[in-house]
Amino acid sequence: VQPASLYDAADYFLGIGGKRIRPVMCLMGNELFDEIIPDAYSVATAIELFHNFTLIHDDIMDKAPLRRGMPTVHEKYNSSTALLAGDVMLVIAYDYINKIETPHLHRVIHLFNKTAKQVCEGQQLDLEFEEKKQVLLNDYLHMIELKTSVLLAASLRLGAILGGASEGNQDHLYEFGKNLGLAFQVQDDYLDAFGDPAKFGKQVGGDIIANKKTFLLVKAMELATAKQREEMNGLIQQNSADKIRKMLAVFRACGVDDAAKSAKEKYLEIALQHLEDIAVLSKRKESLKELAQFLIQRDY
Amino acid sequence: VQPASLYDAADYFLGIGGKRIRPVMCLMGNELFDEIIPDAYSVATAIELFHNFTLIHDDIMDKAPLRRGMPTVHEKYNSSTALLAGDVMLVIAYDYINKIETPHLHRVIHLFNKTAKQVCEGQQLDLEFEEKKQVLLNDYLHMIELKTSVLLAASLRLGAILGGASEGNQDHLYEFGKNLGLAFQVQDDYLDAFGDPAKFGKQVGGDIIANKKTFLLVKAMELATAKQREEMNGLIQQNSADKIRKMLAVFRACGVDDAAKSAKEKYLEIALQHLEDIAVLSKRKESLKELAQFLIQRDY
Repeated sequence: VQPASLYDAADYFLGIGGKRIRPVMCLMGNELFDEIIPDAYSVATAIELFHNFTLIHDDIMDKAPLRRGMPTVHEKYNSSTALLAGDVMLVIAYDYINKIETPHLHRVIHLFNKTAKQVCEGQQLDLEFEEKKQVLLNDYLHMIELKTSVLLAASLRLGAILGGASEGNQDHLYEFGKNLGLAFQVQDDYLDAFGDPAKFGKQVGGDIIANKKTFLLVKAMELATAKQREEMNGLIQQNSADKIRKMLAVFRACGVDDAAKSAKEKYLEIALQHLEDIAVLSKRKESLKELAQFLIQRDY
Repeated sequence: VQPASLYDAADYFLGIGGKRIRPVMCLMGNELFDEIIPDAYSVATAIELFHNFTLIHDDIMDKAPLRRGMPTVHEKYNSSTALLAGDVMLVIAYDYINKIETPHLHRVIHLFNKTAKQVCEGQQLDLEFEEKKQVLLNDYLHMIELKTSVLLAASLRLGAILGGASEGNQDHLYEFGKNLGLAFQVQDDYLDAFGDPAKFGKQVGGDIIANKKTFLLVKAMELATAKQREEMNGLIQQNSADKIRKMLAVFRACGVDDAAKSAKEKYLEIALQHLEDIAVLSKRKESLKELAQFLIQRDY
């Protein structure tokens, strides 16, 4: 007997795609300092496996039926198989890390683990925020830093460690990735509410219907007058047909659409300044600049 | 904000105890070849964390309300927190592995990961067996080897690796642990049905009520006459007050109580032969012999 479905479930999820942004960032972080070395591919694979492990477990917790337009693992198989497939995928991530040459092994595991714990903490905070009536903007930003940004930052830095980068250069690259991640998430929240339905690919306003604590809602609660806050709280407690339209009207009235654009620009600027400060020829930084533009300027 | 409950949940579970057999076996595997080295404590801790990670996730899958007489993590907190607390505990296990000196790091991670995957496979098989009408004895034995035995075997071997043991000695120690684990599980199944209620500490017959595919049920199905098999299938489909009494009568009539004793003795004998074959002074083996006796001769 072989517990086929366990590995089937893992293969299924890896097969339905994804943008593979994190492993690409690991390779780019490596290439920034030298030619890509074989170890970078192992760590890039570990990162993508880790990311997919978190998605499988997050989908269980969120009871999400779909991911990338396909049934989630717990939907296609069952919750127990999804839980175990995620667990095994995390172990296999460490198999890939264990392939790398010894000199960097301790440092790579250290950063990988630190990041893994932060991502779990971010997911835990996200779940706790669901139960809260109000979330402060700083707490929201801390949550998305943990849940989203640190893995992008660590992907770049892990590549840089393998490329023999100095601590200073590693720090700047990490901060580039972290701020890019924050800009990316604010952009994501913005598009979910104000995106062009024809280009966006998912239902515009999904976060509003789900009462998700996004940058927009959290920031709007801070900017709103008492009356507007009352209106938003009223909308949160109902599911009328014009909930999206009415919530967007309050968002616009509070100026939270502009606030999101400003925040995105601010984080992008900080990110690019850190990229600027990395002590390598600016020609080598071109592809990372392009990546930043691709991630942030997208309207889909 | 700190996601306190995530680490609270992990601390809670570690605090409710357990026999700590696996870390002790790691230290004994290390001490068999030399004085205990500091790295052995790190790996022993990693093993215990890994074991607790599997228990937290197993309890979610089994919807178990109690563990060691205390509420399980998902009962005390919630399923999502339990899932994440387990995930974080696995990552922290790797933190402890990452503390060890470089020369053994690759080999330790390799065996730790191989074992971790096997334990997940064993749990998956156990879940699949629940859905099956009949399970063959060999399939059952393969399942408990993966779910229970290989972690005991690996705990010893990881200690031996750190102690600089030869491959041959490592192999014998591993087989000692694996067969001891099989004897231990058969014993566990036996005690659940035939144990002395006054000494056993849990409800005798719990496996029978839950229709668990134990050594006894699986073996009884093989030994039974057509009529006895029919009677067992009838008992499985009901929950009458005398289900335990009637099932035990069939077990005895099939001679499965004696078969369990014989199987236990056989595995114990194989285990002790492997211990015998390890090329160290027999005086050094005394504590492992005592451990074997403790684990197997217990009637509680």
